[in-house]
Amino acid sequence: MRLGFGGYEGDCHAGLTRPSCSRVLSQHPRGTEIRNARQLSVVSAEELAEIAEALGLEAVDPTWLGASVVLSGIPDLTHLPPSSRLQAEDGATLVVDMLNGPCQFPAMTIEEARPGHGKRFKAAAEGRRGVVAWVEREGVLKVGGQMRLHLPTQRAWRGTA
Amino acid sequence: MRLGFGGYEGDCHAGLTRPSCSRVLSQHPRGTEIRNARQLSVVSAEELAEIAEALGLEAVDPTWLGASVVLSGIPDLTHLPPSSRLQAEDGATLVVDMLNGPCQFPAMTIEEARPGHGKRFKAAAEGRRGVVAWVEREGVLKVGGQMRLHLPTQRAWRGTA
Repeated sequence: MRLGFGGYEGDCHAGLTRPSCSRVLSQHPRGTEIRNARQLSVVSAEELAEIAEALGLEAVDPTWLGASVVLSGIPDLTHLPPSSRLQAEDGATLVVDMLNGPCQFPAMTIEEARPGHGKRFKAAAEGRRGVVAWVEREGVLKVGGQMRLHLPTQRAWRGTA
Repeated sequence: MRLGFGGYEGDCHAGLTRPSCSRVLSQHPRGTEIRNARQLSVVSAEELAEIAEALGLEAVDPTWLGASVVLSGIPDLTHLPPSSRLQAEDGATLVVDMLNGPCQFPAMTIEEARPGHGKRFKAAAEGRRGVVAWVEREGVLKVGGQMRLHLPTQRAWRGTA
């Protein structure tokens, strides 16, 4: 996958900016031009296996979820601290914006692919849906390649939400 | 302040990308083109007052720190969760990358402005240096304007760093 500053070149989620969607209605009227922090969907092989188990399936095809990248070996990937960096061997770098929220589209795709199993997707995928990320440094991701995780080193906020 | 997707237009820190600096040497050779997540330096009036007290000064001029924006009313601003959004009344939106790390330049500036007080800056400013941020939605910030804080709503990571 060749990654430019707009994301995975040619992918429907690529772009330096995007029209805002329903996920950010508390911040932007739908269709507002905002920077695209949702260029890539990064999911965890281990979390996909957990979703599959919860759905009574042998496996969940990451393409059902529209995933761009599947990683294994990072525990609790969905809750990686925002602003973590994932860096490939050639230096290509992704920045984690935050966890990916629920969405009904994969449920419909799964229902088509495995009738009877789609409806429970949203509940089964809660907290296992991976993260969305954007490209901080251009480069190439390769199947089977390794990525290194850089965590922000700061304590928790002491304000009140 | 007119904010474009590259930051505060005309400012020396503006740009969609930047050459990487010493802060990110663990990730990029110096001078690598990376996305600019350090467009703006946002500091807290309350934390500046704490720094001033620690330095034995009546006040710390935010320009000594190269700050772009001074906010008041957000406790523990420096440790705002990464990927928090700060939104102005017209919708202009900043994304918090992470806390701003220590730097020697303000110490030199303060030493010039208030001889004898600069040396202790780095220690006094630890954890009070504010955050760096980038523009997610264009707009205008006004002196005296209000900003609304949007926090990422996710639990802490359960992986091991």
